[in-house]
Amino acid sequence: MRNIALKISYDGTNYHGWQRQENGITVQQVLEQTLGAILKQPITVNGCSRTDAGVHAQGFLCNFHTDARMPSDRLPYALNSLLPHDIRVHEAQDMAEAFHARFDAIGKTYRYRILNHAVGDVFTRHFTMQYVAPLSVENMQKAASHFVGQHDFKAFMAAGSVVKDTVRTVSQVSVQKAGDEIIMDITADGFLYNMVRIIAGTLIYVGNGKLAVQDMPRIIAGGNRRQAGITAQPQGLCLLEVHYLGGEANEKR
Amino acid sequence: MRNIALKISYDGTNYHGWQRQENGITVQQVLEQTLGAILKQPITVNGCSRTDAGVHAQGFLCNFHTDARMPSDRLPYALNSLLPHDIRVHEAQDMAEAFHARFDAIGKTYRYRILNHAVGDVFTRHFTMQYVAPLSVENMQKAASHFVGQHDFKAFMAAGSVVKDTVRTVSQVSVQKAGDEIIMDITADGFLYNMVRIIAGTLIYVGNGKLAVQDMPRIIAGGNRRQAGITAQPQGLCLLEVHYLGGEANEKR
Repeated sequence: MRNIALKISYDGTNYHGWQRQENGITVQQVLEQTLGAILKQPITVNGCSRTDAGVHAQGFLCNFHTDARMPSDRLPYALNSLLPHDIRVHEAQDMAEAFHARFDAIGKTYRYRILNHAVGDVFTRHFTMQYVAPLSVENMQKAASHFVGQHDFKAFMAAGSVVKDTVRTVSQVSVQKAGDEIIMDITADGFLYNMVRIIAGTLIYVGNGKLAVQDMPRIIAGGNRRQAGITAQPQGLCLLEVHYLGGEANEKR
Repeated sequence: MRNIALKISYDGTNYHGWQRQENGITVQQVLEQTLGAILKQPITVNGCSRTDAGVHAQGFLCNFHTDARMPSDRLPYALNSLLPHDIRVHEAQDMAEAFHARFDAIGKTYRYRILNHAVGDVFTRHFTMQYVAPLSVENMQKAASHFVGQHDFKAFMAAGSVVKDTVRTVSQVSVQKAGDEIIMDITADGFLYNMVRIIAGTLIYVGNGKLAVQDMPRIIAGGNRRQAGITAQPQGLCLLEVHYLGGEANEKR
């Protein structure tokens, strides 16, 4: 069996997230149906991550097994001609048999975009969370630095999550101002459910003064979801990149 | 009667253009209905321009008359709380009685965005025209310079248009590369129907080699629509700014 990896991007606005489910159209479902139509066999795709409804992805990796013979470099063209325009396939390549887009990922980088503006912006409204009151970018930057390193991020996990091991290592966080936007990029070896959105919401609370920079170590150590900030809205979140050993996902040897 | 000017922006994706019509929802219609609901009287709005279906606007000016007493600085907030999120009101101000958003405009600046990329981009697909084959930005820049000045732009007007005076003065055109995008900004004292989109389509023909830079003077002088390039797609077009004497629309004296 061949094992083919796809690098895709999607605008998550009109999807109920990545993962196949009963109650709405998902990216996985649309991609599997389109692959099935092209390769004339049922296809199951492993995604690198389960993004929520309304969340976007720029460099999302997934893989699937098939015995179809279409050369992998023809797949993006074939898929893009059938897929809706809010899902695009950028690359396809044959991988080693054991490659798994999710289990082999050693890290991911997410971006969270806040539009700090009273009126809003019609052009970025599906890709930012609008926040009206002024935010101190400087304090948000200082607070963000406290998340770097290995921590128990239990306080930054959605209530009701069943994950046992809540320790994650954040290798990088940056907070930058670009016009009216405040953009947070965060890289970690893994993320708990809603972790990026809760960190973004906590930084918003630091930016507006509801929390202080020096509250961060206490909130992290406390492990209590209620001490952190809000869960920032889904549409501001985008999975930028997935990291594998050796940079990109390794090609078939 | 008061005469109030509004500065608005809109994502035209879901509208049949600016102007009120029978067969679809337009920006003018939605704005007039919302104003009517707030001011409790029927309102007719004069727009600075009639943008086509799918075309966007960043700094669109319009004005209306009313005897309602709501202070103009409260209007944007009231309107934005009722309008759909693809229309935003940035400013409102009382104007001199005679001000008319269209007749008083002395010029407009439009932007046309071409995404020169084989796969496309899910995030800008409603705001760019995708063009797959390589384009020479250098040749497009050289060709663009031929449009500057006073010319009869009959060759760059949609067939069937009934305008008699087809002479316009283009004060500035720029073509710039930004990542995978080629962005054309054009300012003139006025534009014929589809003029910006036909100029953009003609520059695409220069970029791909179907037309040469030195063909431009002949095409302009010929006044024949068939010698110019295609009409570029609507969604790449955005009205950036409207110009009035004294810069911004003059406030009430």
